[in-house]
Amino acid sequence: MRLVDLIRRKRDGHELTAAEIEFVVGGYTAGDFPDYQIAAWLMAVLLKGMTRAEIAALTSAMLRSGEVLDWSHLPGKKVDKHSTGGVGDKTSLIIAPIVAAAGVYVPMISGRGLGHTGGTLDKLEAIPGFRVDLDSKRMEQVLAASHVCLIGQTASIVPADKKMYALRDVTGTVESPALICASIMSKKLAEGIDALVLDVKTGSGAFMKQEADAVHLAELMVETGELMGKKVIALITDMDQPLGRHVGNALEVMECVEVLKGGGPKDLVDLSHGLAAWMIYLGGAAKSVDEARELSVKLIASGAAMEKFREIVRLQDGNAKVLDDFSLLPQAQNHVDISSPEAGYVAAMDCEKVGIASLVLGGGRERKEDSVDHAVGIILHKKTGDKVAKGELLCTLYYNSADRLEEARGLIGASYRITQALAKAQGPLVHRVMGSEAAAGKAR
Amino acid sequence: MRLVDLIRRKRDGHELTAAEIEFVVGGYTAGDFPDYQIAAWLMAVLLKGMTRAEIAALTSAMLRSGEVLDWSHLPGKKVDKHSTGGVGDKTSLIIAPIVAAAGVYVPMISGRGLGHTGGTLDKLEAIPGFRVDLDSKRMEQVLAASHVCLIGQTASIVPADKKMYALRDVTGTVESPALICASIMSKKLAEGIDALVLDVKTGSGAFMKQEADAVHLAELMVETGELMGKKVIALITDMDQPLGRHVGNALEVMECVEVLKGGGPKDLVDLSHGLAAWMIYLGGAAKSVDEARELSVKLIASGAAMEKFREIVRLQDGNAKVLDDFSLLPQAQNHVDISSPEAGYVAAMDCEKVGIASLVLGGGRERKEDSVDHAVGIILHKKTGDKVAKGELLCTLYYNSADRLEEARGLIGASYRITQALAKAQGPLVHRVMGSEAAAGKAR
Repeated sequence: MRLVDLIRRKRDGHELTAAEIEFVVGGYTAGDFPDYQIAAWLMAVLLKGMTRAEIAALTSAMLRSGEVLDWSHLPGKKVDKHSTGGVGDKTSLIIAPIVAAAGVYVPMISGRGLGHTGGTLDKLEAIPGFRVDLDSKRMEQVLAASHVCLIGQTASIVPADKKMYALRDVTGTVESPALICASIMSKKLAEGIDALVLDVKTGSGAFMKQEADAVHLAELMVETGELMGKKVIALITDMDQPLGRHVGNALEVMECVEVLKGGGPKDLVDLSHGLAAWMIYLGGAAKSVDEARELSVKLIASGAAMEKFREIVRLQDGNAKVLDDFSLLPQAQNHVDISSPEAGYVAAMDCEKVGIASLVLGGGRERKEDSVDHAVGIILHKKTGDKVAKGELLCTLYYNSADRLEEARGLIGASYRITQALAKAQGPLVHRVMGSEAAAGKAR
Repeated sequence: MRLVDLIRRKRDGHELTAAEIEFVVGGYTAGDFPDYQIAAWLMAVLLKGMTRAEIAALTSAMLRSGEVLDWSHLPGKKVDKHSTGGVGDKTSLIIAPIVAAAGVYVPMISGRGLGHTGGTLDKLEAIPGFRVDLDSKRMEQVLAASHVCLIGQTASIVPADKKMYALRDVTGTVESPALICASIMSKKLAEGIDALVLDVKTGSGAFMKQEADAVHLAELMVETGELMGKKVIALITDMDQPLGRHVGNALEVMECVEVLKGGGPKDLVDLSHGLAAWMIYLGGAAKSVDEARELSVKLIASGAAMEKFREIVRLQDGNAKVLDDFSLLPQAQNHVDISSPEAGYVAAMDCEKVGIASLVLGGGRERKEDSVDHAVGIILHKKTGDKVAKGELLCTLYYNSADRLEEARGLIGASYRITQALAKAQGPLVHRVMGSEAAAGKAR
């Protein structure tokens, strides 16, 4: 088998066998193949696509390039959630404690923010002392003790993806549904989970602006996971405006704690229960999704979920006092209020611009190696459908350095679209639910 | 300008500007860009194609990556010919002397054989002492003295092509009409020529088996050359069977000398006059192609073309005595006759198999770094349309090592298709003539 022949076959639109895909991925991870051959292969994959069988083989080969975690000695199902990324998308910090409190194991491995979207690890690290770099022994202790752990990718998990993603990033080969699917699913399945809930975002703040693209990727991921023997559910959810009202790491921690304490904005509360319900159901702790949702609501009301979050923070070396005293979280030195230039209704928001505004204030990363200011961000007082008077507050920007404040202000100004006519309120948060389990879960 | 953005734009099917293409080619030649980014770009170019304007910009950028020869101090037109490659395709050794004898300068830079096709440099080097590695000063002396020089590529001419071709070879990005066109045309235009005759082969022994592909490449090359201010003519010619009867380096030199002395097989003689005529016409030494063809025929009949070849061999350090005594050329130690297993007619030949048979005997290269045995090859006694008796000679294989003799024999056996019914004789050698000059050249 010669790599150049496999490049040619993919270039000409032929289907590669599992053994051929294993040859590419295994050889690249082992350092047998130069980057330039893999770059040409990746571009051919992007432009010619992959069949479902090829994507499953790619996912499997990537998964097997490194360590696959095994929690079979812990009794019961292990379930995780993955989001394709959004603005103010902070549900992991809410649902991981809820689902763990329901008795389902959640061995969650998350990523960092990049571009206009935030990352769970950055939010957790806004909590002073919180460590996300646990080794596998420590991870196991935390998971066994609390049913949940919230950590970052380790070097031993899916090394093929690290190498391939770095190459894709500089060769224009990121935007391939097949490659995105294999990258996500290999990392998630390496966590040693039994089931996975996918939150696939669509709208102006998502990577997939068009719902059809989100649905296509969701189909690929669901089918790939199911082909590999896992239960997978995908929710196509709205990212046409930020989720909740807080954007920025410490600000989002505060909003999550509000939700866990029984408050918080309705969209964030609803989506959190929606995702948690599917995780609880797939984890076997409820007979239907509706029953699981009721349980999720109860676990907030009883304080059990909040108590679980407190436990996680303590077990991962964080200062749990911040959960009751937000002044102990990183605080921005300055803030500026943005008022509406006219009276009317918020007809729409360009959600990606809000994410970039937070990035520009220091809350996100343009490049992977950038550092993040956990204190900065944005609180949105008005969202789509809201009525607004002239001069009334739209949002508040929290910042430390004024270097790029004007840029952020410009982005926010361009994000809000205000019209005279009564605007439509936001549509449904969950556009659809996909996966073989969807029908079963809804039956009562 | 960032290379990754240009990769993305080409991937998404957009047209790049001349400045953007110059950025890619210039940066790569200068060593500013890694191979993996260029590999991804090349695959995107192959799969998405290039517009005529992009191909012209690519050709121009590649041309300007190195030295462009300038013969403006030599009076009169400089003309060259390029063939896309075939089996027994030896016309350069015949037409270069004819056209030079007509008073037109021929600064010909040729390549080596690769795969099933031969190369002019290998044929010339079958002549003991013949040097193809002249430096530019020596090249100029030879060209000024004799109106012709026959040399190999130097390091200073189109370095971008050397680097890009080496990368294309291992990344499955050779087979792109746009990239092939730019590679050929940049090298030919760097010779400092005024006009170019392209011999674009089609048929079972050509790279382009389908005539439509050959026509497409010819169109691209003609248009690119014309956009760059050159006169370009393309002849689409038959390569469904070997040209002439000799395949192999020293054997082909013999056949060329036979033609230059007034003999030789009709197909080789006809095509040589056809190509020489267009070169003489574009070089301004005749008022029409018909007149140029008559001149070409006369230059053979008078012995002037043969005398010119003798002069070239002497000026480039070759032993000119071989031209009158073929026993001084490299001689194979052994030969084996291949007879027809049945009576009938040669209905067709798989021409590529004949080329590979010669390669397998040692006459060609599987990889660029392979060495060539100039003595070995094949003499074809029967070609398409010929009647053959059972046991009558089809061809003779000349070899030194018997290591792969059986493989060559098998290829020859599979190449000849013999039928009982009277076979069609070979169709016309020149399928069509393309280029803006085509009509003008034919008018009388």
